[in-house]
Amino acid sequence: MMAKEPLCTLREDDGAIVILDQTLLPHRCETRRVATLEQAAHAIRSMQVRGAPLIGVTAAYGVALALRGAAGDADLDRACATLAATRPTAVNLRWALERMRRRLVPLPQGARAAAAWAEARTIAAGDVAANRAIGENGLALLRELPGAGRRPLRLMTHCNAGWLATAGWGTALAPVYAAQRSGLAVHVFVSETRPRNQGLLTVWELAQAGVPHALIADNAAGHLMSRGEIDAVIVGADRIAANGDAANKIGTYLKALAAHDNGVPFFVAAPASTIDWDCPDGERIPIEERPAEELRCVAGLGADGAPASVRLAAAATPVANPAFDVTPARLITRIVCERGAVEPARLRALFPERS
Amino acid sequence: MMAKEPLCTLREDDGAIVILDQTLLPHRCETRRVATLEQAAHAIRSMQVRGAPLIGVTAAYGVALALRGAAGDADLDRACATLAATRPTAVNLRWALERMRRRLVPLPQGARAAAAWAEARTIAAGDVAANRAIGENGLALLRELPGAGRRPLRLMTHCNAGWLATAGWGTALAPVYAAQRSGLAVHVFVSETRPRNQGLLTVWELAQAGVPHALIADNAAGHLMSRGEIDAVIVGADRIAANGDAANKIGTYLKALAAHDNGVPFFVAAPASTIDWDCPDGERIPIEERPAEELRCVAGLGADGAPASVRLAAAATPVANPAFDVTPARLITRIVCERGAVEPARLRALFPERS
Repeated sequence: MMAKEPLCTLREDDGAIVILDQTLLPHRCETRRVATLEQAAHAIRSMQVRGAPLIGVTAAYGVALALRGAAGDADLDRACATLAATRPTAVNLRWALERMRRRLVPLPQGARAAAAWAEARTIAAGDVAANRAIGENGLALLRELPGAGRRPLRLMTHCNAGWLATAGWGTALAPVYAAQRSGLAVHVFVSETRPRNQGLLTVWELAQAGVPHALIADNAAGHLMSRGEIDAVIVGADRIAANGDAANKIGTYLKALAAHDNGVPFFVAAPASTIDWDCPDGERIPIEERPAEELRCVAGLGADGAPASVRLAAAATPVANPAFDVTPARLITRIVCERGAVEPARLRALFPERS
Repeated sequence: MMAKEPLCTLREDDGAIVILDQTLLPHRCETRRVATLEQAAHAIRSMQVRGAPLIGVTAAYGVALALRGAAGDADLDRACATLAATRPTAVNLRWALERMRRRLVPLPQGARAAAAWAEARTIAAGDVAANRAIGENGLALLRELPGAGRRPLRLMTHCNAGWLATAGWGTALAPVYAAQRSGLAVHVFVSETRPRNQGLLTVWELAQAGVPHALIADNAAGHLMSRGEIDAVIVGADRIAANGDAANKIGTYLKALAAHDNGVPFFVAAPASTIDWDCPDGERIPIEERPAEELRCVAGLGADGAPASVRLAAAATPVANPAFDVTPARLITRIVCERGAVEPARLRALFPERS
């Protein structure tokens, strides 16, 4: 299961990038070489790479791949348009493309290719640094929870917002890893996250890191909270509106409702690149509708040990498959970003340059 | 897929019973002959039969099977103890066993075997009659919803509380079938209901009956309600406490929270046999913990068309797998039973003999 070099979600490799193919995880650990714009767009669309921050980083490298041979304005426009069309909800994608464009447009065409690689590298490094800071800011919140240090804190997360979703450390899991490094005991309840089962990526990450955990059905979140078995919920985000409403993987809103109903703190951890200051509230966040087959089929490990998929529902079964939902700011206890951890209403105070 | 005679969940057959094996549905439609107490207990435990009302009916027939050869008090005690131990949450099981005992204990031993069959038959017929009345009482609620009759009502259900869960008609789906018969257009959103995917049983039922429907991930329930796409939620129950708190399939509480947060009516449909007057509130309802393998594996149809299962999570993955949760009475708009449809606080008024 372990690759020979340290696992990472994305690395540069001789004018291309190499990604960990997350559609095969946790059953098989394989990488894919991504050498063209089209391959980068496919990697994002098919969820070979996933997680809002990692989508942004991959898109930045996608621009660099597109500008290898040609670096005119039309090439740049085409690259950004192709990548922007892959997935609608995670704003980090648009943020990364706008940052690439801002950096590259003023440059002479001959200087753009090298600058694109450098900027993509800077975006990736910035994501790692932001997530490390999120880890520390989130750890401070965890230390304040009743029971912290006296017994393992029982945290709940949804989907995967670990290192697999980023260029390093993760967002929601960064405080978990920070807690582990600092000796603060935690136990993480991981919801399966149908239909794509990203909870299994989180289980795989936590097992590798030696963090105690348990897998639960998405349906079980409310019951555990109502029985007092959860100290805090911590999730990532795909887009945070200016008012603090947060879009995240479908099902997040249900967990936030249960947390609120039971007095359980609900934390949203995301870097500043996830905040869409142009979006006033969650109702304006576009919600991606994914293919019906995701719900009709399930992928796993077959009897022969090879990745397999089984059909759960008949091929004609009508399906609705929204991939994200919006958690209103009123249900969020703190938003944790690289600048600190604040109530949603005070988010803008962390970013005085936006006032 | 269609059997030659009308499908039913359970029928008598020459001193035994024949059940539809629901662990193979919706992929294969097969029956099992159940001829002994142990086979009846296994059918309930393994969820070959499932749904609170059908569990009660099966248990009643289980007693009849146990008393075929011998009908002493010890035989009756052993049968009731064996069946009572199969599943803890659905109170219909205990209710049916107590009713069998009340009928049989006063009788001479030689009269018990025949009386047991007759009483089981009466319990099954009573379930069908109760569910038909639930259908009419629920239909009256549906007719009062804004939009009823002018456009298809968009209902949401969870798990399977259709005819498969009962001796006939179903509980939550009885009003849906009544609506269809009366020409009131409905469209039913069916949540997958992990980990056992009973939503696929509901999809199968609705497809057979020609009721428009769509399958959704459990996670999607909140999003659809927040976007105004659901007119009402209707679910069954496994045990209703005297104060109106209702235990039902895990995940029901999350849907009730989302309904409440969005002003969507939330109906719980169940026969009187589901009400546990001895249980003052939902906190006292025992919640079954099911095997971890249910979450680690998923069953479906393999590439060769035969039922198959795939492993989602590693065999060592720690799991928490509660099978039910409790929806507090404050989140329930109406409880629908054979005597009417009332606010939970007024439930006792429907049963003056309990006052």
